[in-house]
Amino acid sequence: MDIYPVIKQFARTLRNLDAVLDKATKYAEARKFDVNNFLTARLFPDMLPFVTQIRIACDQAKSAAANLSGKEAPKHEDNETTMADLRGRIAKCLAYLDTFTAADFQDTKPDAMIRLPNRPGKAIAAAEYLYARQIPNFFFHATTAYDLLRHGGLEVGKNDYLGPLGFVDV
Amino acid sequence: MDIYPVIKQFARTLRNLDAVLDKATKYAEARKFDVNNFLTARLFPDMLPFVTQIRIACDQAKSAAANLSGKEAPKHEDNETTMADLRGRIAKCLAYLDTFTAADFQDTKPDAMIRLPNRPGKAIAAAEYLYARQIPNFFFHATTAYDLLRHGGLEVGKNDYLGPLGFVDV
Repeated sequence: MDIYPVIKQFARTLRNLDAVLDKATKYAEARKFDVNNFLTARLFPDMLPFVTQIRIACDQAKSAAANLSGKEAPKHEDNETTMADLRGRIAKCLAYLDTFTAADFQDTKPDAMIRLPNRPGKAIAAAEYLYARQIPNFFFHATTAYDLLRHGGLEVGKNDYLGPLGFVDV
Repeated sequence: MDIYPVIKQFARTLRNLDAVLDKATKYAEARKFDVNNFLTARLFPDMLPFVTQIRIACDQAKSAAANLSGKEAPKHEDNETTMADLRGRIAKCLAYLDTFTAADFQDTKPDAMIRLPNRPGKAIAAAEYLYARQIPNFFFHATTAYDLLRHGGLEVGKNDYLGPLGFVDV
């Protein structure tokens, strides 16, 4: 089961998102508003704010790597109050993701039952957990964070979200 | 290389999205506005509208299945003008995705160079195409479509986006 390429992609998308947060910081400086105002931005009053979108994107990636390799994920406190703090949260998550190698996942079979720390008494097959829950969830929160910045006027595009791709001439 | 589970998940997410579009239709009826007003909704004036978010989500899934199996994707015209039309676009995409089996992808190696019909003279490795381009792109557009409906007041939640998951008691 291909788990490691997904974990690597989560890290890549988080690095792309971090670069978007850097652009948001420069945008706020240029427009002379407090970039931290973005942290409470929501697309609708009962949706989660930007700060939480970033935290959850990080945690979905972290949890996927930990739960699919049989490790215990480090606890990252939800205490960020600035854009700089949020970039630190991403950096902590990336440092953890970067500790993994393909070998960590080589024994995880698609039908292995995964128990989640926050769902006591429940389990889910590894393939279902990866494809139906972690991948859609991770990209949901990464995209919604990006969309909140776009909604707030930040001038970024799909190339910022995807990052450079390995196309070659043929 | 695990390609078929991703294609199946794209179909599953599109089915979840179709159910959200059904809820949007009922929401508009209850609030007595034209549900088709959503088609031009944007999160910012230079972002793509809802109608295009749905088309691109479908096309990313369709293209991934075609390009990674060496087939030619059917052309689906961008001519939708109603929410019902968009649900038809999703249905056409799902009918195509449902023609695939794991066998269609079994010979595709991660480093196979994939040529894209809309990028003449360029190629990209199959793994890079799947993980770095198609997965992030598909979920970007599916999520942004969902976010546009949420931004427009539709009362749906993460369970609508993810659909029912295969948790079991342990």
